[in-house]
Amino acid sequence: MNSLDIFRDIEPQLQAVEQELLNSITTDVPVLKEASVHLVKAGGKRLRPAFVLLSGSFYCSTLDSLIPLAVALELVHVATLVHDDVIDNSLTRRGQETVKARWGNRISLYSGNYILARSLCLIATYDRADIIDILATVSMKVCEGEIIQMLTCYDVGQSYKDYLRRIERKTALLMALSCQSGALVGGAPADKVRALKRFGYYLGMAFQITDDVLDFVASEEVLGKPVGSDIRQGIITLPALYALRESEEKEVLASILSSPEKCVHEAEKAISIVLSSGGIDFALEVAKSYAEKARSLLRSLPEACAKSVLDKIAEFVVTRDF
Amino acid sequence: MNSLDIFRDIEPQLQAVEQELLNSITTDVPVLKEASVHLVKAGGKRLRPAFVLLSGSFYCSTLDSLIPLAVALELVHVATLVHDDVIDNSLTRRGQETVKARWGNRISLYSGNYILARSLCLIATYDRADIIDILATVSMKVCEGEIIQMLTCYDVGQSYKDYLRRIERKTALLMALSCQSGALVGGAPADKVRALKRFGYYLGMAFQITDDVLDFVASEEVLGKPVGSDIRQGIITLPALYALRESEEKEVLASILSSPEKCVHEAEKAISIVLSSGGIDFALEVAKSYAEKARSLLRSLPEACAKSVLDKIAEFVVTRDF
Repeated sequence: MNSLDIFRDIEPQLQAVEQELLNSITTDVPVLKEASVHLVKAGGKRLRPAFVLLSGSFYCSTLDSLIPLAVALELVHVATLVHDDVIDNSLTRRGQETVKARWGNRISLYSGNYILARSLCLIATYDRADIIDILATVSMKVCEGEIIQMLTCYDVGQSYKDYLRRIERKTALLMALSCQSGALVGGAPADKVRALKRFGYYLGMAFQITDDVLDFVASEEVLGKPVGSDIRQGIITLPALYALRESEEKEVLASILSSPEKCVHEAEKAISIVLSSGGIDFALEVAKSYAEKARSLLRSLPEACAKSVLDKIAEFVVTRDF
Repeated sequence: MNSLDIFRDIEPQLQAVEQELLNSITTDVPVLKEASVHLVKAGGKRLRPAFVLLSGSFYCSTLDSLIPLAVALELVHVATLVHDDVIDNSLTRRGQETVKARWGNRISLYSGNYILARSLCLIATYDRADIIDILATVSMKVCEGEIIQMLTCYDVGQSYKDYLRRIERKTALLMALSCQSGALVGGAPADKVRALKRFGYYLGMAFQITDDVLDFVASEEVLGKPVGSDIRQGIITLPALYALRESEEKEVLASILSSPEKCVHEAEKAISIVLSSGGIDFALEVAKSYAEKARSLLRSLPEACAKSVLDKIAEFVVTRDF
């Protein structure tokens, strides 16, 4: 199954999102336009727009009114990616040249800021201070998450809780926001808004843990970046944290992961220790339990096409590409 | 006269702004807190908060309700400064070590983003989609301005209009927004909001032109950075543009300003050509004419203490530090 199959029911709306993403780049400064369009076109799964549309559809008969919000939340996501690239010095993302590689740091930084401002324009059209406030609060926590990720690089003493807190800020909160704001604009009652927000949160946790597993086990072709790039950057994810506790070679692993030089030059060794430790299965079990929590939250929602689609997404997220 | 004398009438409110600026940094991630507090404390003239308070005071008896807005607009300004430092590799600003110099690029970038998000939280409390929309639109134009500034470095063929369009986006629009949003929250009628917005715009133009003149003629102590730092970075401002047209040594100047190497190594020569060309007086005349336009807009406003203060600021901006 691929994501297109799942999203078949909202395909016309997702195509409209795709078009509006490009239409949203209205600047007449050519290089800013090119860089922003490149960023938006580099694409991705458009999970956040899908969450907005699906969460909004339970109590709203036409999805058209949700499209600007769906576009806005994808723009927020795209902006965080380009800012990551400024810092990480990444040359490719999703198999494509990054804006930083092609246009340099200044264009990348301001393209990110421009896209964020554009997103805010779209959200302002709803005249909903509550959504602005949630967006701003989530944005602050995303910044905190980025800094925490930096501070915990090469830190082999970090706890599972440190890891979970980090991926919450990196991924889960924006997915929760997508579901929550979609539900709010779609007119869902407060308890259903809360259920959808929590659905997005748990699904985001499952999604990021699975992403972190894929960094160990997927092919470079699927990842669009080299395998083991987290290890190479000193980012210690759940499979590695498990191996640091349970592997017979945990001391060797700790000596590699605590050293920036060894993370680069002995990455293969570290990966092989993690793979043989059972860390992958452990992480996948944790991801599945988050996905199950997400699915259980759907039960309180009214029967609707979106309900079965969200259920399928929750199933898909933890089984993709294996 | 110094800015403290001018601002005497709103001193209690400006002190409250100062306190709330620090209170606004609520993160419990220590390094993010330290960097953000450092940024906010590095201070500056707090012109934007003063404009919010003064513009809001014409139709509003208590200024307390304007303080979160004043804080928010100063935070937007501070965030643009830290993002500039990421890119410019500046080690000092206003005589203080930059966040980038002390904490590195990643902390700088995300501190800027964090401060922007914090600003948005404060603005959301007003439940005014119109202000969010204006802020987002101005933010997009600020990004365009930064990129245009980059693209026009070393470009000795740029026109006066190119320069004016650049400083509009770099400075004048945010000052216009400060006056406009202050007036909106303060309950001013539409025509007075428009007058105050235009006042901020013209004053911002006068302010930036004067700043660009100071880069040639002020002491390093006053500037908090080396004299001629614009020239060294290839940023061609109004005095240099004049000299490129009118100086007897315009060919020599053009050969320096079009070369990144010469801009660094022959900056003193370029500065001396600009100083002897009459470019400083020309730029100051242009600044004064913008300041006069600003002052004339005050005439339509009701008699109030803020009116004479704004008038004094407009006078001060083009006469400071000479």
